[in-house]
Amino acid sequence: MLTQEQVQRMQERSMYMLERAGIVLTFQKQQQQIEVADLGLGEIECTGLQLVIYVNNDRYCAKELIMTPRQTCAQHRHPPLGESNPGKQETFRCRWGKVWLYVEGEAIAATQACIPAGSEAYYTVFHEIELHPGDQFTIPPNTWHWFQAGDEGAIISEFSSPSTDEFDQFVDPRIYRFTKIAG
Amino acid sequence: MLTQEQVQRMQERSMYMLERAGIVLTFQKQQQQIEVADLGLGEIECTGLQLVIYVNNDRYCAKELIMTPRQTCAQHRHPPLGESNPGKQETFRCRWGKVWLYVEGEAIAATQACIPAGSEAYYTVFHEIELHPGDQFTIPPNTWHWFQAGDEGAIISEFSSPSTDEFDQFVDPRIYRFTKIAG
Repeated sequence: MLTQEQVQRMQERSMYMLERAGIVLTFQKQQQQIEVADLGLGEIECTGLQLVIYVNNDRYCAKELIMTPRQTCAQHRHPPLGESNPGKQETFRCRWGKVWLYVEGEAIAATQACIPAGSEAYYTVFHEIELHPGDQFTIPPNTWHWFQAGDEGAIISEFSSPSTDEFDQFVDPRIYRFTKIAG
Repeated sequence: MLTQEQVQRMQERSMYMLERAGIVLTFQKQQQQIEVADLGLGEIECTGLQLVIYVNNDRYCAKELIMTPRQTCAQHRHPPLGESNPGKQETFRCRWGKVWLYVEGEAIAATQACIPAGSEAYYTVFHEIELHPGDQFTIPPNTWHWFQAGDEGAIISEFSSPSTDEFDQFVDPRIYRFTKIAG
């Protein structure tokens, strides 16, 4: 649960970050078009992210992900959806700032990202990939992953197969993908 | 057919335009990674475009299209490829500059774009859409379209279903999609 004020504040910060990166919004110019996702934990400064969805149809999807400093998208995966869909596949391309992405695979001894306090049990994959502007990485379907922005935040372009957030699987049972706003 | 010098010049101009727009390349930093497509007409200043392919897999594709002032991508369409693929679907999002996009539909009386001299017979659709930074338009599969950058050029993000350039159909029979470079 977020307050209206929290949502508006994160939208304003996201607009500032997009402008700084030279990314122009028009029909999405209204701040209301920036989705603020707290994943139901109500600690948006720590866990969550902001999104602008450019297009999401039955064939492909493109978004901009805007993350404030050290904001973390909690560990989740995109499971298979029927026989013909192995699950959402995503390519992350860092546009601005820095992001640490963690996926299944050989774990790093000490992660550069800091797991949100109190949520340690819900982070289990630690193969670290550091993305700077111009770097990109493709996350295979049905693969556990989580990511955290660096000290200045990050903007990430996401290119993917169609997005069906309602089927995302999070490790943390407290998480609810769709933001509830008070009042 | 292009000369090595022509290719290099267009790559340098494209790098300058990308930098000006705040778009960072890294593993694609080498100019060789910028594709210069003259469509076989050998008049790259007039007909053709430059491309950076970020990702193209069996599920989705994302590219940056870089066009110098008044450069034109000739009229073409992406036909169905088998029963399960109605043809490539593309979303164009203008990032920088201005672009006029022409698709099937009600024709405008006088196009803002200038059809390349001598190629008038190969341009037949004139429903005009003007895209500025932040504007976007989705071109349905199997739809004739062509586009021209404005007086300062344009950078366009293309999000799409998988790209299979070899199956593109151009109106102009002189066109060959894959660039030949002299020497």
